[in-house]
Amino acid sequence: MKKMGCPYGTHRVIEPKGVLPQPAQKIDNSMEIYDNEILLDVQTLNVDSASFTQIKEQAGGDLDKIKEIMTGIVSERGKHHNPVTGSGGMLIGTVAKIGEGLKGKTDLKVGDKLATLVSLSLTPLVIEEINEIRKDIDQVDIKGQAILFESGIYAVLPDDIAENLALSVLDVAGAPAQTAKLVKPGDTVVVIGGYGKSGMLCLYEAKKRAGVTGKVICVGRRKEGIDGIRDLDLADEYVVANSTNAVELMEAVKEATNGEMADVVINCVNIPNTEMGSILAAKDTGLIYFFSMATSFTKAALGAEGIGRDTTMLIGNGYTKGHAEISLQIMRESEALRKKFEELYA
Amino acid sequence: MKKMGCPYGTHRVIEPKGVLPQPAQKIDNSMEIYDNEILLDVQTLNVDSASFTQIKEQAGGDLDKIKEIMTGIVSERGKHHNPVTGSGGMLIGTVAKIGEGLKGKTDLKVGDKLATLVSLSLTPLVIEEINEIRKDIDQVDIKGQAILFESGIYAVLPDDIAENLALSVLDVAGAPAQTAKLVKPGDTVVVIGGYGKSGMLCLYEAKKRAGVTGKVICVGRRKEGIDGIRDLDLADEYVVANSTNAVELMEAVKEATNGEMADVVINCVNIPNTEMGSILAAKDTGLIYFFSMATSFTKAALGAEGIGRDTTMLIGNGYTKGHAEISLQIMRESEALRKKFEELYA
Ligand SMILES: NC(=O)c1ccc[n+]([C@@H]2O[C@H](COP(=O)([O-])OP(=O)(O)OC[C@H]3O[C@@H](n4cnc5c(N)ncnc54)[C@H](OP(=O)(O)O)[C@@H]3O)[C@@H](O)[C@H]2O)c1
Ligand SMILES: NC(=O)c1ccc[n+]([C@@H]2O[C@H](COP(=O)([O-])OP(=O)(O)OC[C@H]3O[C@@H](n4cnc5c(N)ncnc54)[C@H](OP(=O)(O)O)[C@@H]3O)[C@@H](O)[C@H]2O)c1
Repeated sequence: MKKMGCPYGTHRVIEPKGVLPQPAQKIDNSMEIYDNEILLDVQTLNVDSASFTQIKEQAGGDLDKIKEIMTGIVSERGKHHNPVTGSGGMLIGTVAKIGEGLKGKTDLKVGDKLATLVSLSLTPLVIEEINEIRKDIDQVDIKGQAILFESGIYAVLPDDIAENLALSVLDVAGAPAQTAKLVKPGDTVVVIGGYGKSGMLCLYEAKKRAGVTGKVICVGRRKEGIDGIRDLDLADEYVVANSTNAVELMEAVKEATNGEMADVVINCVNIPNTEMGSILAAKDTGLIYFFSMATSFTKAALGAEGIGRDTTMLIGNGYTKGHAEISLQIMRESEALRKKFEELYA
Repeated sequence: MKKMGCPYGTHRVIEPKGVLPQPAQKIDNSMEIYDNEILLDVQTLNVDSASFTQIKEQAGGDLDKIKEIMTGIVSERGKHHNPVTGSGGMLIGTVAKIGEGLKGKTDLKVGDKLATLVSLSLTPLVIEEINEIRKDIDQVDIKGQAILFESGIYAVLPDDIAENLALSVLDVAGAPAQTAKLVKPGDTVVVIGGYGKSGMLCLYEAKKRAGVTGKVICVGRRKEGIDGIRDLDLADEYVVANSTNAVELMEAVKEATNGEMADVVINCVNIPNTEMGSILAAKDTGLIYFFSMATSFTKAALGAEGIGRDTTMLIGNGYTKGHAEISLQIMRESEALRKKFEELYA
């Protein structure tokens, strides 16, 4: 075996030097592991939605073309890091080998089946064969191998939740877990994009944490979308508003809160230009959690300053301690939500 | 007089409808005020550094060309909102008229001299004449008028601090004020870009709040830059490191903290690609305040997730309650820092 590598995987960065594997152009994907690495036999890639959409378009929907593009990315970069969208995804695999240096440090054992919770955009990967492409849910079955760094996070797949369902939930695990940490009893909470995948999980956690003295408001842009989740009883109020129209969203939240506005706003949309609406939906002393990757740093910073708002605005770190457990637990607690997720995302 | 307008100024947005004045393409800059607006006679524009650099370049340094570009922007958009950089700046002016609806609501009186603390990119402005351009410090004296909305924040200029000095300090007031709120006694604090304008103010506040049991570390990329502020005694340790090299920065902070890393990281640089270095400089449970406008939301979010870090990351809202008072107070408390600021920025 080789010597110890950097916990963050910088020992595998080929170019440019000095950066971490995620921003790197090219990393070393030789499958001989360092002493603090874990080798995985890969079963399924769950390609990031933005990335897979781009690849499908470039391939004109042709399956062989998709395969060609995917293997091309990996042979060029040593990882499935889409050069157009910059994003990755996650994978399901089985532990094949554990570096000597990790003995006693990890609970994993050879044969464990897990989902990686770090992006494919930083994971050394080799694709030997692409077996099946499930175009509708962005999943691709392959024969191949991957490396998990010492700092790499993962979730061992539970026995009581189907793999595809677990993968869908884990994809957005950071959002409900952060919601659980941010919402306090009695809070008024607005979830923007509330009937989306991360939105529903956030509503569930928000209602649980805000409790009977709190108020949870689901905001979505289409009435049919809202109607589709009413029977799940995830929110106290439902509001139809286009959140790119800041004033429309503010007025809607004002009405739903009797002018009080929200203590916590969780932004789960998948489109740009909702920063200002999120700020106006919150109290001056409020807190906004931007989970949406379409958030612009400058629009949020200048937006709040521009109207003299002291709002605290958090960059949606996709990781927080226990996020996998918290999100999977929702599938166990709520029969109704589990059914909805199986119907939509598995 | 006209009727009441929206506190945020949406009543002056010409296009597109539904947005706030900041993101708007064009706003109404007629100088007849609404009942909740304040009319200002403008003396000096302090153009945002990124914006003014762009204008100077486009003009090839020619003063008449600069005037032409500036008046062109305002006549087209109704505000000094640079279409290339998207940024604005601030202004110094005197209160000329106060809307009826603000009587009893504002402490201002006609004749007060103030600096606006909301961006020029949302402030209705008319330039009648450009009198003087001070190219080196981005300040332009004009004859003209501007409107302050009801939600618009400002600072009445103090008698004991020169106007230009006050303007320079107020430009970055959010950074030291946030530092004052985030740093607790005993904290280890890293300020990246520590010998810059906002950086020095943050160091000062950090040292004051962290106290004798804390440790404040100044990070800069040039040894001469560090040496230039050593005699100000703003930090406990000084580190030369290029913060775009994440590993170099991490190792330097590791050494300066005996491997403990920072409780709070304040990012005050003016260049991109320092997100990963900031994350690695912080403890897993640490907090990062990104004041730099060159911060990328996705690089920060994916960066932390990619190495499984639970770091809390704040979007640098340029406003927080009391920010003007807190930053100006530093100029009164520290004779040495005031001299340095007069030398460099006034
Ligand atoms: N590490 C991370 O922080 C991380 C990880 C994963 C995902 N994400 C981000 O999280 C976001 C949400 O992901 P997801 O899987 O939950 O997406 P999703 O299921 O597609 O949900 C997005 C929701 O936003 C709604 N929406 C779109 N435009 C809107 C508007 N103008 N006003 C109000 N609502 C609007 C959509 O409604 P319609 O269905 O009507 O369009 C949909 O319900 C994405 O931006 C993704 O990039 C972040
Ligand atoms: N509302 C807001 O949030 C708000 C308001 C105002 C300003 N800002 C932002 O705040 C930031 C700082 O403003 P400022 O006026 O303090 O700027 P500044 O005085 O120019 O300071 C920037 C500092 O960063 C240092 N730096 C540059 N590259 C570096 C590197 N690779 N490693 C370490 N340090 C490096 C510079 O050092 P050298 O001198 O050696 O280059 C300089 O000391 C800007 O990005 C600005 O956009 C935000």
